[in-house]
Amino acid sequence: MNIAIIGATGYSGAELLRFLRNHPHVRRCYLYSSSQEGIHLSESFAHVGEIEDAVLQKIDVEQIANECEVVFFATPPGVSSTLAPAFIDQGVKVIDLSGDFRLKDGAVYETWYKRQAASDHYLQQAVYGLTEWNKPNIQEARLLSNPGCYPTATLLGLAPLVKEQLIEENSIIVDAKSGVSGAGRKASLNTHFSEVNENVKIYKVNSHQHIPEIEQMLQTWNERIQPITFSTHLIPMTRGIMATIYAKAKQPLSVDMLVDLYKTSYKDSIFVRIRKPGQFPSTKEVYGSNYCDIGVAYDERTGRITVVSVIDNLVKGAAGQAIQNFNVMMGWNEESGLTYMPIYP
Amino acid sequence: MNIAIIGATGYSGAELLRFLRNHPHVRRCYLYSSSQEGIHLSESFAHVGEIEDAVLQKIDVEQIANECEVVFFATPPGVSSTLAPAFIDQGVKVIDLSGDFRLKDGAVYETWYKRQAASDHYLQQAVYGLTEWNKPNIQEARLLSNPGCYPTATLLGLAPLVKEQLIEENSIIVDAKSGVSGAGRKASLNTHFSEVNENVKIYKVNSHQHIPEIEQMLQTWNERIQPITFSTHLIPMTRGIMATIYAKAKQPLSVDMLVDLYKTSYKDSIFVRIRKPGQFPSTKEVYGSNYCDIGVAYDERTGRITVVSVIDNLVKGAAGQAIQNFNVMMGWNEESGLTYMPIYP
Amino acid sequence: MNIAIIGATGYSGAELLRFLRNHPHVRRCYLYSSSQEGIHLSESFAHVGEIEDAVLQKIDVEQIANECEVVFFATPPGVSSTLAPAFIDQGVKVIDLSGDFRLKDGAVYETWYKRQAASDHYLQQAVYGLTEWNKPNIQEARLLSNPGCYPTATLLGLAPLVKEQLIEENSIIVDAKSGVSGAGRKASLNTHFSEVNENVKIYKVNSHQHIPEIEQMLQTWNERIQPITFSTHLIPMTRGIMATIYAKAKQPLSVDMLVDLYKTSYKDSIFVRIRKPGQFPSTKEVYGSNYCDIGVAYDERTGRITVVSVIDNLVKGAAGQAIQNFNVMMGWNEESGLTYMPIYP
Amino acid sequence: MNIAIIGATGYSGAELLRFLRNHPHVRRCYLYSSSQEGIHLSESFAHVGEIEDAVLQKIDVEQIANECEVVFFATPPGVSSTLAPAFIDQGVKVIDLSGDFRLKDGAVYETWYKRQAASDHYLQQAVYGLTEWNKPNIQEARLLSNPGCYPTATLLGLAPLVKEQLIEENSIIVDAKSGVSGAGRKASLNTHFSEVNENVKIYKVNSHQHIPEIEQMLQTWNERIQPITFSTHLIPMTRGIMATIYAKAKQPLSVDMLVDLYKTSYKDSIFVRIRKPGQFPSTKEVYGSNYCDIGVAYDERTGRITVVSVIDNLVKGAAGQAIQNFNVMMGWNEESGLTYMPIYP
Repeated sequence: MNIAIIGATGYSGAELLRFLRNHPHVRRCYLYSSSQEGIHLSESFAHVGEIEDAVLQKIDVEQIANECEVVFFATPPGVSSTLAPAFIDQGVKVIDLSGDFRLKDGAVYETWYKRQAASDHYLQQAVYGLTEWNKPNIQEARLLSNPGCYPTATLLGLAPLVKEQLIEENSIIVDAKSGVSGAGRKASLNTHFSEVNENVKIYKVNSHQHIPEIEQMLQTWNERIQPITFSTHLIPMTRGIMATIYAKAKQPLSVDMLVDLYKTSYKDSIFVRIRKPGQFPSTKEVYGSNYCDIGVAYDERTGRITVVSVIDNLVKGAAGQAIQNFNVMMGWNEESGLTYMPIYP
Repeated sequence: MNIAIIGATGYSGAELLRFLRNHPHVRRCYLYSSSQEGIHLSESFAHVGEIEDAVLQKIDVEQIANECEVVFFATPPGVSSTLAPAFIDQGVKVIDLSGDFRLKDGAVYETWYKRQAASDHYLQQAVYGLTEWNKPNIQEARLLSNPGCYPTATLLGLAPLVKEQLIEENSIIVDAKSGVSGAGRKASLNTHFSEVNENVKIYKVNSHQHIPEIEQMLQTWNERIQPITFSTHLIPMTRGIMATIYAKAKQPLSVDMLVDLYKTSYKDSIFVRIRKPGQFPSTKEVYGSNYCDIGVAYDERTGRITVVSVIDNLVKGAAGQAIQNFNVMMGWNEESGLTYMPIYP
Repeated sequence: MNIAIIGATGYSGAELLRFLRNHPHVRRCYLYSSSQEGIHLSESFAHVGEIEDAVLQKIDVEQIANECEVVFFATPPGVSSTLAPAFIDQGVKVIDLSGDFRLKDGAVYETWYKRQAASDHYLQQAVYGLTEWNKPNIQEARLLSNPGCYPTATLLGLAPLVKEQLIEENSIIVDAKSGVSGAGRKASLNTHFSEVNENVKIYKVNSHQHIPEIEQMLQTWNERIQPITFSTHLIPMTRGIMATIYAKAKQPLSVDMLVDLYKTSYKDSIFVRIRKPGQFPSTKEVYGSNYCDIGVAYDERTGRITVVSVIDNLVKGAAGQAIQNFNVMMGWNEESGLTYMPIYP
Repeated sequence: MNIAIIGATGYSGAELLRFLRNHPHVRRCYLYSSSQEGIHLSESFAHVGEIEDAVLQKIDVEQIANECEVVFFATPPGVSSTLAPAFIDQGVKVIDLSGDFRLKDGAVYETWYKRQAASDHYLQQAVYGLTEWNKPNIQEARLLSNPGCYPTATLLGLAPLVKEQLIEENSIIVDAKSGVSGAGRKASLNTHFSEVNENVKIYKVNSHQHIPEIEQMLQTWNERIQPITFSTHLIPMTRGIMATIYAKAKQPLSVDMLVDLYKTSYKDSIFVRIRKPGQFPSTKEVYGSNYCDIGVAYDERTGRITVVSVIDNLVKGAAGQAIQNFNVMMGWNEESGLTYMPIYP
């Protein structure tokens, strides 16, 4: 099968290529870029030199539709909402890594993203690709909306608690920490090395566009879930997200019971690993891989549960989960092309 | 005045020396070490070479008491509880940077620190040196117990809310992030560069020994405060602590009102800086200095307050606050020897 | 085929496992450790949990010889010199990642390593595994001595110049920079995060044990090569080596001519990539992969050549090259199990 | 005395303010910016909030000349060459941190900087401020040209060898490593965190504009010095430069003799510290301070000397040396306002 990557000069695009190049069912990856068409990919990313060095092509829907069965969008907000419909209409499947099709309600998108939403027709048919919890729909998807990095870590960490209704519905607080690659490759003072190194910053307090995405899914699982408190911090590292999640238990629990619940919930999820009681994952333990590692604690003094969920933001938080969804959509083994161990140290 | 630093080969000891050497009221710093007596300080810390290169002396209470008016302990737990009483009894004032005299109840110390507490006689006379909120007692102190790094950031961030009873007493959650220097200079796998770099780790979940210290002070301010949830994360940077604090407002507020409250609360506190509404400090903005910078947010969707409080863990979180307390104890200008701007970038 | 990894709890051992686990010709990896036998590997390395979690076994030569056809040693100096001979004598092939068999002259080993050399019998039969330049011998090897990380980067960078006799034989200066993982996993003050972060250190000036290894190979290529100047610097990063190499051209050259020479020299070397004139590789461009990337410059003002050679010290500088040699020894495709793109960013 | 800082929103400007604010002979610092006039400094640099928060003023020569006796330029190339003459002509002393007045030959400037040189009249009266080696001229200077960061580390490291004619004149190779703050505050892909972190890059091979500055001074000391080889590397840290310098001894030496020479050469230089034989400085040992630390080695195998010279690029490499020169120009104690210990760790 041939596939297309639109937005090949961003970090998620580069990660898609890293995995898809070795994917057992992919013959060829065509690369497209609106900003840098005509150059060799290695002129933008020296690390691909002599491995995969196609010329970046101009985006031409007809041509792509003829050559490729699936199109991956790894583009900034506002691109796929415009371009994806033409592919869908021609029967080409779309996997969109941007946020353009994640929110069912266009008005909510416009409030949080401050830009025009995709048309409702496509918003409604988009399938949210949190693979572990939406497989039946993903199998049928023609337009797959890949989750955001923060929502992936947060939702995988919260799912068992919310679905089992173990926590107070108004008690969820998520304190998230992210490496800088989540901000993309565009240079700015906020990602300037001398400003970020040896520093921790909080940003978008109570206003991150991933908040409605998280709440939408939580409320699918339990409609009584209230608005969450969600904070994001920039950490002086390149990759990795840790979501530290706090919630109040409805009744006294034990950590053993919680760990059992999580292990049961994810027993068929090859990419979710649950730590033993008393152990917690660090972000480096999933570096470069598609794993989401989770640890859980219960504090008897406060009756609160702490969940620690880590991913590589560019893999399980972007390109890796996109390929996991691609595999599910195509009916292949979920792990195809993703059998990479984390790289440590 | 002459002073003594016991534990001069640790990071807090080095910072004490950096500030005290230029302190306008200090003539000479005598340096002591139990582990490395007899060597020149520059053999342990090359950065002091040709500036301050005394030989580290053996700890001799009589000699120190003859030469020095004040003794600073920058030692691991269990040292000052044993050695400080002899100084106090001879009329030498003690400023203890360790946790040995912070908890009034020895049994609580033994539960959280897993070692023997200091004798109750001295625990009771120790004065807790959160300078901004305990000046009258600090002025009279003979045994000053300097706060921990996490408690300093957390308590300065919470004080106005707790004192004004604006928040639900059982709603406090503190998600703290720290640079690695807080772990001291002793090598271990947990502080090994290749394990810490490009990584975020959570540690001591619900079990950090600073928890009772924070709760003790909060309950002094408002006895109805319930146990807090408190998490600590290791960040790949050397210095800096950020405490992100979440609490539920008892009634609807506004961010403007909160910022006003904080500005008023700290209007006489030279080392506490409050950010404008919508702005938050990052740890680098206080690097190397004695400042604690605070930003506040209020989320109408959830009714929760978010407070962001940052310090340099080795300065306001250790050596700097110790000198601030020293100044207050001696009746000098609170800023003496501490008029350093943060070093940026 | 089954293989054994002795020293599975070090960083090179972990990297061997990462690659060998997905190697198309390896059925099973048995893991051995002298220091941590009896534990599950995931107790030492959490990142392998649920992927590969064998119990670390005690080193038993008979048992290993029965189960495995090849043994990889990823051990500190002094281990393989003692243990490898028994395997060789039983017909088990050995690939040694340590320095124990790299120097043909035991006396030179003892001078630079300050410990007892392996017996001469085995030193003489050991084959030096700089894959690109020693393939015929590697194909026949029973005891393969894998090059050091610095020698790999340096020798691949120097080979074309030395073999073609383009440079003054007494003019070679190598200024090498390394990430901290090269120092292994053992905690020490030299690898303590707070000492290494935001710092560059030079170490082992004129005394690094890799110097005789480099000179031995250079003199094999051109016996008139004189002792080299070689410096090593510790950089605040985990992975990567850059060797910046300076040498005086015997006669005026041009950068185009040099780049042509390098491209020709390495035209059949899949893992060596030569940059265009005016371009130079950075360490991150080979991160996690088996590539060695090289850039070359010629300065008309000074008549000096500058060669920049980068590798991932744990891959091409250790585990990756070991597997590349393993492939050559077994007659397989040189790339087997190593078709990983660099991970960027 | 009042002084002016032109270019207060750059990193060197911020460092000037950090030191000058506590300078015993400076009453007030006026701040100017061409790019951000009208804002409060804290809007650009949050770390100065409530300490020094003047409004950035438009550059008005008349007004500045009325208010200030000395003007510091911390501006990009091309600014001071245009603006400084007007101040000089009005009797205001100028200390220029940019490269505009460092090269005596305007044509050389234009070759290496690729822009128009200052007028020859001012180039000739500019005094090069390598404080340790040019004090008599600095005392008389009206236009002080502050050295570049790389030249400062390199020249202080080479001076004793070159002046004593101990090295072959065509043998100098400088391999320099720098933190990222040397690139200034302007965001670009080259200083984007995700591209720089966990990476070492070489840049401007044989073409750095500091090369002619270094050679000009070396040839002042010994006119037979030949063009040098000079390479610059970007290190994933914010501050610090290490120059590793290689040169061939004319005749056999010993490290003891070399260390003695350096100690003698710098015996009156308060800011230069020479390490003992066998010891070398790391960049962190001068962090935030005006020290230049130097270690020296001699290799009997090769007859080469290795000199390791470290500075904080923003202090001794920029703002600190500028103030040191300011002190010399004014006849004050050379250390005034600069008595800061390095901040460690």
